[in-house]
Amino acid sequence: MGTGWGSFKTLSKIDTSKYDVTVVSPRNHFLFTPLLASTTVGTLDFRSIIDPVRRKGQHHYYMARCIDVNTKDKTVTCEELGDFGETNTFTLPYNKLVIGVGCKANTFNIPGVEEYAYFLKELHDARKIRGRIIELFERASLPNRTVDEKRKLLHIVIVGGGPTGIEFGGELSDFFWRDLSRYFPDAPIHEVCITILEASNKILSAFDENLVKQAVRSIMKTGVHIRTDTLVKEVKPNAVVLSDGTEIPCGMVVWSTGNGPNTLMQALRFPKSRAAKILVDEHLRVQGEEDVYALGDCAEMEGQPLPATAQVAQAQGHYLASLLNGKTQNPFVFISVGIMAYIGRQKSIMDSKYFKGTGLLSWILWRSVYLTRLELVKNKCQVPFEWVRTFIWGRDVTTFGDQITKRYQKKYMTQKNPLENKPATEAPTQQTPSTQPAPTASTKEETPSQLTETTKEELKNN
Amino acid sequence: MGTGWGSFKTLSKIDTSKYDVTVVSPRNHFLFTPLLASTTVGTLDFRSIIDPVRRKGQHHYYMARCIDVNTKDKTVTCEELGDFGETNTFTLPYNKLVIGVGCKANTFNIPGVEEYAYFLKELHDARKIRGRIIELFERASLPNRTVDEKRKLLHIVIVGGGPTGIEFGGELSDFFWRDLSRYFPDAPIHEVCITILEASNKILSAFDENLVKQAVRSIMKTGVHIRTDTLVKEVKPNAVVLSDGTEIPCGMVVWSTGNGPNTLMQALRFPKSRAAKILVDEHLRVQGEEDVYALGDCAEMEGQPLPATAQVAQAQGHYLASLLNGKTQNPFVFISVGIMAYIGRQKSIMDSKYFKGTGLLSWILWRSVYLTRLELVKNKCQVPFEWVRTFIWGRDVTTFGDQITKRYQKKYMTQKNPLENKPATEAPTQQTPSTQPAPTASTKEETPSQLTETTKEELKNN
Repeated sequence: MGTGWGSFKTLSKIDTSKYDVTVVSPRNHFLFTPLLASTTVGTLDFRSIIDPVRRKGQHHYYMARCIDVNTKDKTVTCEELGDFGETNTFTLPYNKLVIGVGCKANTFNIPGVEEYAYFLKELHDARKIRGRIIELFERASLPNRTVDEKRKLLHIVIVGGGPTGIEFGGELSDFFWRDLSRYFPDAPIHEVCITILEASNKILSAFDENLVKQAVRSIMKTGVHIRTDTLVKEVKPNAVVLSDGTEIPCGMVVWSTGNGPNTLMQALRFPKSRAAKILVDEHLRVQGEEDVYALGDCAEMEGQPLPATAQVAQAQGHYLASLLNGKTQNPFVFISVGIMAYIGRQKSIMDSKYFKGTGLLSWILWRSVYLTRLELVKNKCQVPFEWVRTFIWGRDVTTFGDQITKRYQKKYMTQKNPLENKPATEAPTQQTPSTQPAPTASTKEETPSQLTETTKEELKNN
Repeated sequence: MGTGWGSFKTLSKIDTSKYDVTVVSPRNHFLFTPLLASTTVGTLDFRSIIDPVRRKGQHHYYMARCIDVNTKDKTVTCEELGDFGETNTFTLPYNKLVIGVGCKANTFNIPGVEEYAYFLKELHDARKIRGRIIELFERASLPNRTVDEKRKLLHIVIVGGGPTGIEFGGELSDFFWRDLSRYFPDAPIHEVCITILEASNKILSAFDENLVKQAVRSIMKTGVHIRTDTLVKEVKPNAVVLSDGTEIPCGMVVWSTGNGPNTLMQALRFPKSRAAKILVDEHLRVQGEEDVYALGDCAEMEGQPLPATAQVAQAQGHYLASLLNGKTQNPFVFISVGIMAYIGRQKSIMDSKYFKGTGLLSWILWRSVYLTRLELVKNKCQVPFEWVRTFIWGRDVTTFGDQITKRYQKKYMTQKNPLENKPATEAPTQQTPSTQPAPTASTKEETPSQLTETTKEELKNN
């Protein structure tokens, strides 16, 4: 169950001559999350950081969501959503079950987050963010904008000062100053503002304090503002409300705070930790169960909580595959190889046993480490190609316009074109010469305006 | 007005020392439409076939939709849609106006087309098609599917036997037999069906008849069915109804018939042809107007209608730039350099003065011609890189899952997580260590469930 760091590592290391493996996940790819922030601004393309779960005949994969586990019958219940929201469920038997379903972004039940904030967890999130940034710049460039309106549109607020938030801020700042500033002369780039709001008293709390100080100085130089000890009370359509009542107007809010349990984890009745994670023993076995294992962000080893990082999940995945393959009987031990984050302007912060520092050297190491970690040869070729491309030609500043088109479709959908029911034979359209004559008058009465607004919406979303 | 073949060519050839150019279009890129079908199956990436309209300081660009032209005051009224569908309009003055807004797909007012069919005109259309194909295969692979259900899901109907429809069929067939068949062992690839429905009595009517015969034989071999003289009466969610009442169940309907006038063309009160196109003289000047020009798919030269192809639009754009630059006074004359289309399995059909044929040689020529026509050096580098990549590693079989995620979000959005209002400090999430405590009980009452369903939808679409 799951296709994240932990499950995917288990999957790729498990001995398929011993096990008949079935993967169930709503996502049919593994996502190389450390480079996700790079895709939001177009340094990298979306398809370069994913790895398909389907491989030629090595295992089964079902695109579905697990909704329940029955440990007595040893079955898993899965759910598939049809085109119109109808649910089909099916049941799969198991001998050994590995749960690696991860977490979802924690909104802390703060009003408006789910509705108005942008998240940074999946590829489609990154894609939405990217479209939104360009849209904001385009809208700020229109001739009827006042300076004040431009300033509001071009203010991006990032909530959360962990590595994800900081890396996104760094990439965003690069994108603004290197690319967008050249292409959008009518958007006042000196008014563009990126603010990182952090609830605790320091950012990047997992890193060495001196390194963070250096990093903060460097981040400040890139034009990113950091506000620590700042709590968000509400997210409004075009503003963030702080706990002291201050309202910060902005064009976009990106939410990158901690993780919370997802729907499946809430449904499962296994023993849980205080952080609502599944409790496992030192062999990653779920407490009280024989053949159920859990790993990654959804699991917690009793008494020794580990950071919710890709590194931990991957190490656990590796260990679990060895355990299931019968190669090891030892308990799982995590040895950190260090942590790192990109902070903008070709500088990174790196905190490992062998190297501590911020700056260009860290950045080169940052890129090298991630490049070696990419599994697919295809991606190992594509990522450097795209880095070179970005270096030479800059980042792409176009939007595909889905968001805006959808809004327009909504507006114009009910307006029928009176000329459209002329037969096309009259129009000399040589490129597409099919002649679809108009339906008879009687069929016109069945036009889709009879559909409810909700159904239409549902269809547009498909 | 517009960023298609005609307008974009005028834009790139116009003398900016003589004119202060402003472009208005809802789309901020030029799309290389002949390669659009290749992106639906992942032979090429979406960003490799687009060219940003924004260039460094050469002209102004406004992302907006023109809604009216006032030739008396010499102004254009433009409209921008805000986040929540609210309309902002602004007016731009002009000395010379070039209208190149193209057309939209003609649905002939056939019920269900607008709602259930997929179009193939813009990048976001191609993206939707791609996601849908993979989704259909994933759903056909689920364990609870009967053979009959699988067959229905894996039937793709293309309406329109013009070059767009045929090329899409060819690319799709390649994708099925080369890539998807290897990755989806549970989807019965021999049951997969592609059907092209054409209303007239032959496909590719602009091509030489003998060439078309050869092409049809070749297309049949790739497993694509062609049904001519077939009219569509209605498109249903998972089926197409023919004029004789037959209902063909299918997973997806792709609509690639002729063109119809878009909203702006309907609004403009210029003299129109029978095909509802703006009538222009041999200098592309709109009839009865002094400084208004029209070109491409939205224009028709009185008495001599030209095919609605990229080639014509581009030639007109080139001519108009010369005319405006004062380099020519001659009327516009179109000389066709030939037509071509990809038909699958590395074969193309090509009909030009110098070469007529179908097969591998045509295909090599097809690729070469398009490669030389790409304007950006970046794209000239990327497209061959991607062709090589596709050749070596095949096409990507993952979906980003937007569609499915949206359906799930809809379903689970109202379910609040009871554990989420625990402060995150309890959770040892080292990766994102921000501590956003829960809002006080009073704020919880303001949760977004008060929003109407429609507003939520609107937001999800953004």
